[in-house]
Amino acid sequence: MTDPTMASCPVPAAETERILLGHGSGGRLMAELLHDVVGAELGGDVTAEDAAIVDLGSAEAVVSTDSFVVTPRFFPGGDIGSLAVHGTVNDLAMRGARPVALSLAYIVEEGLPLAELRAVTASVARAAAAAGVRVVTGDTKVVGRGAADGLYVTTTGLGLRPPGAAPSAVRGRPGDAVLLSGPIGLHGTAILSARERLGFEAEIASDSRPLHALVAAMIEVGGERVHALRDPTRGGLASALNELAESSAVGVELDEESIPVPPPVAAACALLGLDPVHVANEGCLVALVAPEAADAVLAAMRARPDGAGAVRIGQATAGHPGRVQMRTLLGSARVVDMLVGEQLPRIC
Amino acid sequence: MTDPTMASCPVPAAETERILLGHGSGGRLMAELLHDVVGAELGGDVTAEDAAIVDLGSAEAVVSTDSFVVTPRFFPGGDIGSLAVHGTVNDLAMRGARPVALSLAYIVEEGLPLAELRAVTASVARAAAAAGVRVVTGDTKVVGRGAADGLYVTTTGLGLRPPGAAPSAVRGRPGDAVLLSGPIGLHGTAILSARERLGFEAEIASDSRPLHALVAAMIEVGGERVHALRDPTRGGLASALNELAESSAVGVELDEESIPVPPPVAAACALLGLDPVHVANEGCLVALVAPEAADAVLAAMRARPDGAGAVRIGQATAGHPGRVQMRTLLGSARVVDMLVGEQLPRIC
Repeated sequence: MTDPTMASCPVPAAETERILLGHGSGGRLMAELLHDVVGAELGGDVTAEDAAIVDLGSAEAVVSTDSFVVTPRFFPGGDIGSLAVHGTVNDLAMRGARPVALSLAYIVEEGLPLAELRAVTASVARAAAAAGVRVVTGDTKVVGRGAADGLYVTTTGLGLRPPGAAPSAVRGRPGDAVLLSGPIGLHGTAILSARERLGFEAEIASDSRPLHALVAAMIEVGGERVHALRDPTRGGLASALNELAESSAVGVELDEESIPVPPPVAAACALLGLDPVHVANEGCLVALVAPEAADAVLAAMRARPDGAGAVRIGQATAGHPGRVQMRTLLGSARVVDMLVGEQLPRIC
Repeated sequence: MTDPTMASCPVPAAETERILLGHGSGGRLMAELLHDVVGAELGGDVTAEDAAIVDLGSAEAVVSTDSFVVTPRFFPGGDIGSLAVHGTVNDLAMRGARPVALSLAYIVEEGLPLAELRAVTASVARAAAAAGVRVVTGDTKVVGRGAADGLYVTTTGLGLRPPGAAPSAVRGRPGDAVLLSGPIGLHGTAILSARERLGFEAEIASDSRPLHALVAAMIEVGGERVHALRDPTRGGLASALNELAESSAVGVELDEESIPVPPPVAAACALLGLDPVHVANEGCLVALVAPEAADAVLAAMRARPDGAGAVRIGQATAGHPGRVQMRTLLGSARVVDMLVGEQLPRIC
């Protein structure tokens, strides 16, 4: 409740007893839903991490799942198929895992052109091959007209984590450098521009891409000193850093001027009234890295095309644990909170 | 094209270029969709088996995924949550695996009562605990009103296969006994009765339950002589046996009188114009077992509550490979084909 707009405009209690669009936002309502409903009913904590470690005896396997409901299904820089591969591969990568196998489940609305399902599936295949992961099993359900919006895709990834790689949302420490692998806001603004025909399509394309090789390069240099990784998808950089700050019980201080926002993204956000730190990304990551390893890890990131734009954007602190603050260009400090509800529905 | 009704009533070519409800049926249209569209685009065969083997080095892991779109979400004998656990646990079991971990992905329509999501999640938790499998990761997406029908659930299971357990759809051999673990038709008729308020709800409940312990008991006795297993879900016993016959290149001959159809299921099917062999099940399995092991495996099945109704219903043959024939009560033989299109939409 650090956002002052919350106090003056609370969500009515009666309204919160039904699922709202905001429950899918990646923001606070969603965190509450996962904690209070899903986590509570399952009796465990399935929400603190992007992917789960499964003890397989000698091998340490990692499992992650994501459903994709993005609209439109085809957008500059990708489509629902490539996104479904990248999103799950990246969730595995955030736990330090190399992707090994993917499952693919479709829920299809009656009436979808077969050509479109074929195109999406081809995109899945291309993205999987490029990421070096096999699609090993799948499922298809069809529902009547009006019972879905075209096509929804659920992928589940199985990965293997090499010894020494242990990034986790809970391992951030005061003093850690906060590294960002590239510019923010491209995916969300690309989707919105395509959806609303805003005319930015020529300038903005989604950053959707697999990040496991970048993570492997970071871990090769930094090992266990790569403490925490997160891909800032729904809810954007702000939500990702708030989740890490909360899980690791550290504060995070950011320098606004160090955060790379491409000019077309800034223009689109200004037009739409969005803050770029809340806009979804699908091809960058944020890392908490021990200070003594930060320069070497940053150099390793910059040596790769998928990390060429990597920058240090701040540091973790012992003060204000669980809170993210930003020093603005004007010299003041502001709290960077998670969104309360839904800003951009069906962005992934 | 062994069904004579096909020749006289083909699906118009123009119609087949769009997704039809029948593409989700578990029947021939779906098989063609998976082969021609999904399999072709992925460049591999992700559809021949219920679950995939993933080489994890020393461990042999099994992965399976399924989306659940059943309506109504609550029905006699279960709900979409328990069904989502049982369905995926059973797909793992059909490959001889013990379930280890489940992922859980929700696509939720705006407006769903939270109480309902809570109830479904509680049911997932109960079913998972009863099956001895952990839900280790999950995802929730919310779409706008009208963009889904309440709640869709996708589960992906990770299982481990012990040495010596190698059931596969391709391992059936001429001479194998065809074993069925219990009565057929309960799930599909329970769903239809609940959906259409047919009044059979007091007599018919879904057979939804996990089958991995039954499979373990079968393999303990029969080992590798348990050649092939299939749970006859969408498309029913007919589709399951056609798939096994085709994958193993054997014929299958069934004795109609040996197939257990509970009287209320027979009555419901007569009322609805359905053939019980095409009706979905969620708590029984069909097995091809080497003849010298069949009696011992059948006895092991009957010794358990989940296999108490097990019977031998026929045998695999070298003749008419890929085709399933049934000797009827009248002494004639008829071809038991897969359904062409959709008989019972959204049954699971």
